[in-house]
Formats: sequence, structure tokens, C-alpha cells
Amino acid sequence: MQNTLLHSINSPKDLRLLKPEQLPQLAQELREFIINIVATKEGHLGASLGVVELTIALHYVFNTPEDQLIWDVGHQAYGHKILTERKAVFHTNRQLGGICGFPKRDESIYDAFGVGHSSTSISAALGMAIASKLKGETEKQHIAVIGDASIASGMAFEGLNHAGVTDANLLVILNDNAIGIDPSVGALKMYLTNVKKGTQKQDNIFEALNFDYSGPIDGHDLDAVISELERLKTVKGPKFLHVITTKGKGLRQAEEDQVKYHAPGKFDSETGELIPKSASKIPKYQDVFGHTIVELAEQNKNIVGITPAMPTGSSLKYMMDELPDRAFDVGIAEQHAVTLAAGMATQGLIPFCNIYSTFLQRAYDQIIHDVAIQNLPVIFCLDRAGLVGEDGATHHGVYDLSYLRCVPNLIIFAPRNEMELRNIMYTTQLGLHHPIAIRYPRGRGITANWKQPFETIEIGTGTILKEGDKIAILSIGTIAKNVTDAINGCNNPETIAHYDLRFVKPLDEALLHQIFKKHNAIITIEDNSVKGGFGSAILEFASANNYKNNIKVLGIPDVVIDHGSVTELQQQIGLDSTQLVKLLNNILIVNNQ
Amino acid sequence: MQNTLLHSINSPKDLRLLKPEQLPQLAQELREFIINIVATKEGHLGASLGVVELTIALHYVFNTPEDQLIWDVGHQAYGHKILTERKAVFHTNRQLGGICGFPKRDESIYDAFGVGHSSTSISAALGMAIASKLKGETEKQHIAVIGDASIASGMAFEGLNHAGVTDANLLVILNDNAIGIDPSVGALKMYLTNVKKGTQKQDNIFEALNFDYSGPIDGHDLDAVISELERLKTVKGPKFLHVITTKGKGLRQAEEDQVKYHAPGKFDSETGELIPKSASKIPKYQDVFGHTIVELAEQNKNIVGITPAMPTGSSLKYMMDELPDRAFDVGIAEQHAVTLAAGMATQGLIPFCNIYSTFLQRAYDQIIHDVAIQNLPVIFCLDRAGLVGEDGATHHGVYDLSYLRCVPNLIIFAPRNEMELRNIMYTTQLGLHHPIAIRYPRGRGITANWKQPFETIEIGTGTILKEGDKIAILSIGTIAKNVTDAINGCNNPETIAHYDLRFVKPLDEALLHQIFKKHNAIITIEDNSVKGGFGSAILEFASANNYKNNIKVLGIPDVVIDHGSVTELQQQIGLDSTQLVKLLNNILIVNNQ
Repeated sequence: MQNTLLHSINSPKDLRLLKPEQLPQLAQELREFIINIVATKEGHLGASLGVVELTIALHYVFNTPEDQLIWDVGHQAYGHKILTERKAVFHTNRQLGGICGFPKRDESIYDAFGVGHSSTSISAALGMAIASKLKGETEKQHIAVIGDASIASGMAFEGLNHAGVTDANLLVILNDNAIGIDPSVGALKMYLTNVKKGTQKQDNIFEALNFDYSGPIDGHDLDAVISELERLKTVKGPKFLHVITTKGKGLRQAEEDQVKYHAPGKFDSETGELIPKSASKIPKYQDVFGHTIVELAEQNKNIVGITPAMPTGSSLKYMMDELPDRAFDVGIAEQHAVTLAAGMATQGLIPFCNIYSTFLQRAYDQIIHDVAIQNLPVIFCLDRAGLVGEDGATHHGVYDLSYLRCVPNLIIFAPRNEMELRNIMYTTQLGLHHPIAIRYPRGRGITANWKQPFETIEIGTGTILKEGDKIAILSIGTIAKNVTDAINGCNNPETIAHYDLRFVKPLDEALLHQIFKKHNAIITIEDNSVKGGFGSAILEFASANNYKNNIKVLGIPDVVIDHGSVTELQQQIGLDSTQLVKLLNNILIVNNQ
Repeated sequence: MQNTLLHSINSPKDLRLLKPEQLPQLAQELREFIINIVATKEGHLGASLGVVELTIALHYVFNTPEDQLIWDVGHQAYGHKILTERKAVFHTNRQLGGICGFPKRDESIYDAFGVGHSSTSISAALGMAIASKLKGETEKQHIAVIGDASIASGMAFEGLNHAGVTDANLLVILNDNAIGIDPSVGALKMYLTNVKKGTQKQDNIFEALNFDYSGPIDGHDLDAVISELERLKTVKGPKFLHVITTKGKGLRQAEEDQVKYHAPGKFDSETGELIPKSASKIPKYQDVFGHTIVELAEQNKNIVGITPAMPTGSSLKYMMDELPDRAFDVGIAEQHAVTLAAGMATQGLIPFCNIYSTFLQRAYDQIIHDVAIQNLPVIFCLDRAGLVGEDGATHHGVYDLSYLRCVPNLIIFAPRNEMELRNIMYTTQLGLHHPIAIRYPRGRGITANWKQPFETIEIGTGTILKEGDKIAILSIGTIAKNVTDAINGCNNPETIAHYDLRFVKPLDEALLHQIFKKHNAIITIEDNSVKGGFGSAILEFASANNYKNNIKVLGIPDVVIDHGSVTELQQQIGLDSTQLVKLLNNILIVNNQ
């Protein structure tokens, strides 16, 4: 099929010129357009396929961008981007300099609110709706589209609870496909299932919260969706539309394996078959975590695992398969996850609470208030720390060392490689008297032969990786690899020492005294903000001990870092090995003068 | 009435020896005991008076401390403390070295979980209940008592949503008195009111979340509460008891003015009349904020105010009274408050989002993800920053400079006095291109004549308070007062310069260059953690500019600081002016050698 309709559409204005009976064809064309590009350029697939009809209907019925449309999370907004002036650049999606994988205000007037993390849409749309009220814009519509996994997160409830007592002109659309990245969980999901089956009375939770509820309706039935949206446009106050969709709709494999086709990588756009990735013997850190926790939990019956809605992404699914009674997917509920872990720890369990670095921001108070102040030995595994690449600004885990370092009682560790991750996991479950945060990056490590016998790591000890008589480089975590490469590539490798401090807290002060006495020039490097992170910890040590060494702090600059591959982003900010070589050579020249 | 029954009770074991018909008398004695002590020693009153019967019933029916009882927030746990071995020390409540104003694990085996912030109890109790399941402790009970204001916070919903799909032996008791510190708000509160009135069907939200719901029952009817708890003890799985109580029950004035008698200060235990505090012309920072925002908002129609459940504590109530359409109490919903503000800011409104420093920890992700990444000019007013005194460890606002400093685009300011607070508020509403956090402490300032004409503060500029030729002290915020006092008290005041940097971010680099060139010895001082805060920012500046000055960083040490008056706590950690004098004299001696 030719994209005869889509071809003519650059903006919702064009869309609104179509007749209703043309829209099903447009839906098919839009679906094919998404499939064809994501098949080769990669990205999120299933969520956007599921809302093709809803996307068309929304822009057809509402007067975007004057009416304000907010997509929760934004995985599902590809169709929206294509219909709103970004069809021609959609192939640059998630690439350096290309469009963002999520709605973003800077990118388009149609992206009313930047998203990435879940459950923000109701609050943001309500804020806009209240603003419209105050400004006397009585006709303006404000729409939040939120999935069934996201609406179960606490923040969404807070938004609903407030909206229900306002007269704001707010429409919340529940895009109910019974799955987030992994299948949805929780009592609300069960409840929604009962509503769909008709076994739950209409007098429901959302009506109890004072919303004008309608639905459930078939989200792939364009006529039904459009006529319901037309009706709702005339209803004032907070209203709620429950739409049932199928994630991956229109691509058989994506409908059948919704988890895999959430973000499937490259695939054949005709057959839907995944294109095998080049085999690698190097594991992902996620899998090191996932296999290791199973290995440890089989020996230590007190170990439990917790993930807020990321069993696949974190690889806790291995434990959920092997030891289902002791591994918990609590849904998109980071706050609950952390305090649940704290409760378990009071009873002598050993909770491994696995949360992406960027999502742990959601549970910052719980870390301080429920875990650290009570000094409960919860083991936080912070996945996707540092730069995460294509997911971009909203997902980089580049603040954790800064926001965790001020938390009393908390140990902070970053493994340099797979064995260090395994060994710290082994060490912590032997019995720890403090909470610990273990932060590691997304993706593959550096060691094929990673499954080696466990060794204990002494808390608060760093290690020397390479001797050298002039400069000392102090690194934390996997950025050590770039340092090693840079040292090997510079003019006088023998003059450069390399230490892995391993613990950001407590620091190995004995080792640091040795380093500061031996090396005048010290460089710290981390894949965390330069404000308040590892480098600052070293500066604090130096100040407290009256050292006057030259200390250069390298890390993530204090600006918003956008999307691109991790390698490209490291190049952009000077943390790749090539630029580190130049830096080292310059410092060596200065030191030899 | 003699405390004839209470006298004999040291622990719940003693309580359980009483006959049911003796319990109403015990309730009366317990109420009088609380009133008598709080009348002279101060503390939270209304919440504990409201749950006297519930407290007795819980310890009478359940086998505490084996059965685990968690009080949400903990304001209401005075009766619990008195009945669980702390009657004799209850008069030390909230004092330095005395018992904590909130349940605390270190203090008693009966305090199953430390609390202070709201809405953690369900998650913690569920964690314990799951642990009991795994350990095969089938008889053990796990009880969370949570108020109607706290249950409306997102975290509580996350806990309910998870608990509803488990078979954990969990009892959630909703203590519904229709008020938090201020009256409860939101759609859930309306719904609960309808349940109480019988206008809402029994098939309710909590049943929809798969809880075995019972109630509402009269929480002051000991027989009813006890028989219902006895029945629920035999019910397995997640269950929910809705109890109606009156905050302040038993003291007429406390029932009639529930907001004032939440924590009334000293009062006459016989008559209930408040004992007037010594009149002061020095305002509270809260009132400076509250009056100033009204003053500004009357001129600038774009200004809106937001508080998550603290209209009285923050003094936003002044604006709620004067400009009710533009001032919003969103309930205990810090996450929602911040993103609501972000949504409003996208539409050109100027939101002043007032949140206590310690509670902003709940909205850390929203600051980064919804405000800072999008660079929306939201104005955060962080009340109760620094040491808060008697509320203790869970409430000190001593992390904000550290956790905010790594957030891109964010301006961070701390006023030294009332005029600086007024002037920065004035400046920000003139039009700012970035978000800003303004942090100020609890309680009174230093200036009677604070209401002076507005002046603009140039963003990123510090100021000199006192010239001096040797040491330079760099302070941030109201701790400047201690520094001034210390300088005046030391041996050579003329040798000490004092600068107020005002902005932690961006730093006044021009001023810092002057300071670093002029003064070899530099002292930084802040009422924030020494890890990653203002002092670290100065160290980063020095490192980036190759300065080798002696820099001493003073601030809150990296340990949990308990309760006591602010003055006592400052003495404990060496930040009071007396100890600063000693420190300065020592440094002067070293510098003169």
C-alpha cells in the first residue's frame, strides 16, 4: 500500500481535512510507517502501535496544539510525532542530534509537556487546566493519556485526587492494554480487568474520585473513539475515558510477545521476525545481576528481590522464575519498593532492591527516611547508572552519586567490572550493618569469563590498577575502562597511576593518603555530575587533610545531556578515551616543564 | 481522678490484665496524662487524644510487640509510648536526650518502624507481613494505622495496590478524623465523607483494591473497636478497618480548634486555654513568606501559590484567605505539587511552590524531570531548611543543598534575613528564566522592621558583610548570624572578613576570585550536610581555578542528628557562636605563627 494519505499530512490541520471514513486507511498507513522505520532504526514499538487509532482520533477531534495533549511516559507518542510535523525527521528518532524518543517541549509546540518517567501527565495537565481557568480560556481542552501501569503509580493517584475536587477542564484517558514494559501488576490492574469483563459494577474507583467516567470502549474502533471524544469535548470538569487497546496492534509478533516487542531492536518489517544481534560472550550487567542473585538466593534463604516494574529490564525475572515466592514486581512504585524493602529488612530478610538510577529519584525520601535514618541493611542495586544513551535526558543516571553521598549511614559502591558486581553482591548478603547502593551501567561489561568464584570485598577499600610515578587517576565504576585505554594510548603511560576507589562512601582514606603523598597531580573521573559527586568527595578529603595537590575533577558537566549513543555522548563531554589521551598528554607536558 | 489504673500499667502485658469494663476509665486517665504533660512540655496533642481508645484497643487485642504495630507519621503515638514502657520518661518527649516525638526503632521494641513523614506505614507493614509469611510465622499480625490525610498520598496508594494482590496478613486501619495538620482535602476525602454519611455504597474503593473492608465504626466506642479487632484477628489476608475519630477528643478547645491544638504549645491543662507566648516583634520566616506572597500576588496576577498540606505551617493560608482562586492546598502530595507547578509554569503562571525542605525529598524526581530538565521557572520555597529542632532526625532539612546542587538549570538561594527572603521573592516574580530553590529555616528571624521596600537581587551575586584582612568566612543563609556573633566575640575581629554568598548556584565567581586572592584562610559554613553542599561547591571552585588556599568546611556532620532545640543541636555539632569563637581564635593563632 502506498502512503497516499499519510503522504499529504504534515500537521493535524491536514488530518482534520480528511473524511472520517478515510481514517482507518490512515491508521494502517501510520502503523506501517512506524513499523518500517523502527524496524531499521530501532526504538519503542509496541506502545505506539497500540495507540494509532487513539492518536489519530485525538488530533482529529481536538484543536492541537491549542488544546493541550500530554502523553504519559511518551513511549507511545511516535504516531503523535509523525502527525505533528516530524514525519520527515522521524528516522532520526533517538539518535544524536535527531528527535527525542519522548515528547519534548523544545522540539515541538505539539509536545505540551516533556515526559519520560511515568505518571506525571495528570498533574501537568491539571496545572495547565487550572492555568486556563485563571486566564479565562474557557474552551481550551487539556488531555492526559496514561497507561494502566502508569496510573497505578502513586503520583497519578495524587493527581486524580486533586483533580476530582476542581472544576478544571481535564480529560484523563486511560489507555488500558494490561501491560507496561512488563505485564501490569497490582490490585488496580485486577480491578480494571474486572471492569473490562463486566464483573465490576460501573460505580467505580474513578467515579468515587469524582470523575465523570465513561467506557470501557474499544480503542481500535475509530468511530467509537471519535464519537466519544466529541461528546467529552462538551463535558466540563474532570472526566475519565477508559479505552481498551492492544499493545503491538497490527504486527502479529508484537501482539503475541508484547514484552519483547516493547523495544525489539532491529526486525524484518515484512515478517516481523527479529534480526539476531551479533552474538556476544560479554554479558550485560543486568544479566550478571540476575544470575548472581539467583545463585546467592539459592544458598541464602533470607535473600529477597524487589523490582518496581522492571523484571525484564533489570533481569530480576530470572529470580521471579526460579524463586517466585521471594522475588517481587511491585509495579511502578519506587517509593513503595524502598519502604517495603525497609520493612523486610527489619525482620532479618536481605532485600536486594533493584531500581534504575534515574527512577530511584522517585524514592529519595524513602532512602533517607525509611532506610538510612534507621540504618537498615537494604541492598540497593542501581541499574542504568551513568549515561544511558538513546533514552536521553530524562533517563540518564548521572545524579545518584551526588544525591546519595549526603545520606548518613549509606555505603556507596560502583563496580568496575562484572566480577566486582558479583563480589559486592556476595559480600553484602553475608551480613551488612548499613544500607548500600551499588550502581552499575546499562549494557554489556568487558569480561567473557565473568562467572568466577565469589570473593569478599572489604567495605571501604579501593584498589590500585596500575602503578605510575607522576599523575594519579582516581576512577569510580566502569569508566575505568576508558581510563585504562587512555593511559595505554598516551605518550608516557609509565608515569600514570590508576586507582579504582570502588567506594564513594566510605572513602578508602588510607589509600588516599598514600596517593596524595605520592602524586602531586590527581585526576578524578566519574560518569556522574561534577557537582557533589565522587570528585567532590575527593576534594573534601583533600581539604579536611590540608593536601594542596592539583586535583582535576572530570565527570558529567552541569547541563542537561540529551540522547545519543553512550560513546557519542562521552565524546561530546570529553570522557571518551581519545580525549582523555589528549588531556593526559597535556598534563604530562605541564608536569614535565 | 487518680491515675489508679494507668499507675499500674507499664507495658501492654499489664494492660491485658484489665477487664474490658475497666478500659473506659483507663482511656480517661491516659487522656489526662497526655494533656497534663503536653500542657507544660509542649508537643503534638490533638492526634494522640483522638486515638486513645484505638491505642488501648490495639494493645489489648494484639500481642505487641510480637504483633507489629506501625503508626503512620507518628504524631498520634503518645498514648502508645505511654502504654509501652515510656510513661516515666514521657515528660522528656522531644527534648535533647529525651524520647523522640515519633516512634523510633532504637527507642523501643514496641516501635516496629520509625516514622515522621507520612504514608509509609502500609509499605513497611506489608514488608513485615511478607517476611512473616516467608518465615512461616502464620499467627503474626501486622497492623498499619494511617490517617485520612496520609492515605491520600501516592505512596499509600502504592502500598494498598501491592497489598491487595498478596495473601499477606495485613490490617490497615484508617483513622478517619477528616483532618491532617490542616483539614484534609481531595476527592478521596469527599468520598470518605460520603461513606460516613451512608450516601456512598459499601462496595468501595478499598474493596475494589481487594481488601476485606469493614466499617465505618466509632473509634471512641471501646467495645465496638475491640470486638471488631478481635474479629479481624481471625481474618487472613489484607483487610481494612475504617474507624471514625475526633481529633483532640476529650479537650473541648482541641476538638473545636483542631488546627491550633495540633501542636498548641503550652496551655492550661485544666481549662485548655492557651498560654500566650511572649510577644515578639520579630516575625517568623513563614509569616514573611505568607505576607509577602500576598503583597506580590495582589500586584502580579500570574502568581499562584501551592502547598502540599501545610497551609498553616507555611503561612500560605494568608494567600488562601485573600486570593482563594490562586492558592492551592493539594494535600500530602509533594510529587503532584511540583509537577502541577511545572504544568502551570508552561502556561506563563508564576508558581510559588512552598514545601518543607525535608518533604521536598518526596518530589526529587519531579524537580529534576518535570521542572529542571525543561527549565521551567518554578519558584520553590523550601521552608524548615537546616536543623528544625524538636521534630528531630526525620524532619531536619539538612540535605537540600547537596541534593539540589547537581540539578542542572536550578538556581539555589538562601536568605540571610527577612529582607533577603522578601527581595528574592520580589526578584523571582519579575521574570526568571530558570527554576529557583529558596531555602529558609523554621521560626523567627532577626529583624523587627522587616517590611521594607522591595529591592531586586541580582542572580548569582554574593555580598560582603564585614571587611577583614586575614581569615574569610563564607556563609550561606541564616547561619550568618552565628558567624557575626562569633566574629564579634573573638580576639581579633578586625582580622576576619565575612561574606554571604547568598547563591549556592550559580556561585558569585567574581567575588570568589577576589576572596581567594585576598585571604589564604577560608572557612565555609552552612546548616546543611558537609557532604556535597555549599562548602563542596567552594572546594570545586577552588579546584577548578587552581587555588591552594586553606579551606575549612563547616556544616552538619554526616551522621543522623536527633531532636533537641536548634541551639542545643548547634552546640552539639559545633556550629553555635561560642564554639565558632574558639575555632576562630585557634585559627588566628595558627595564622599568626
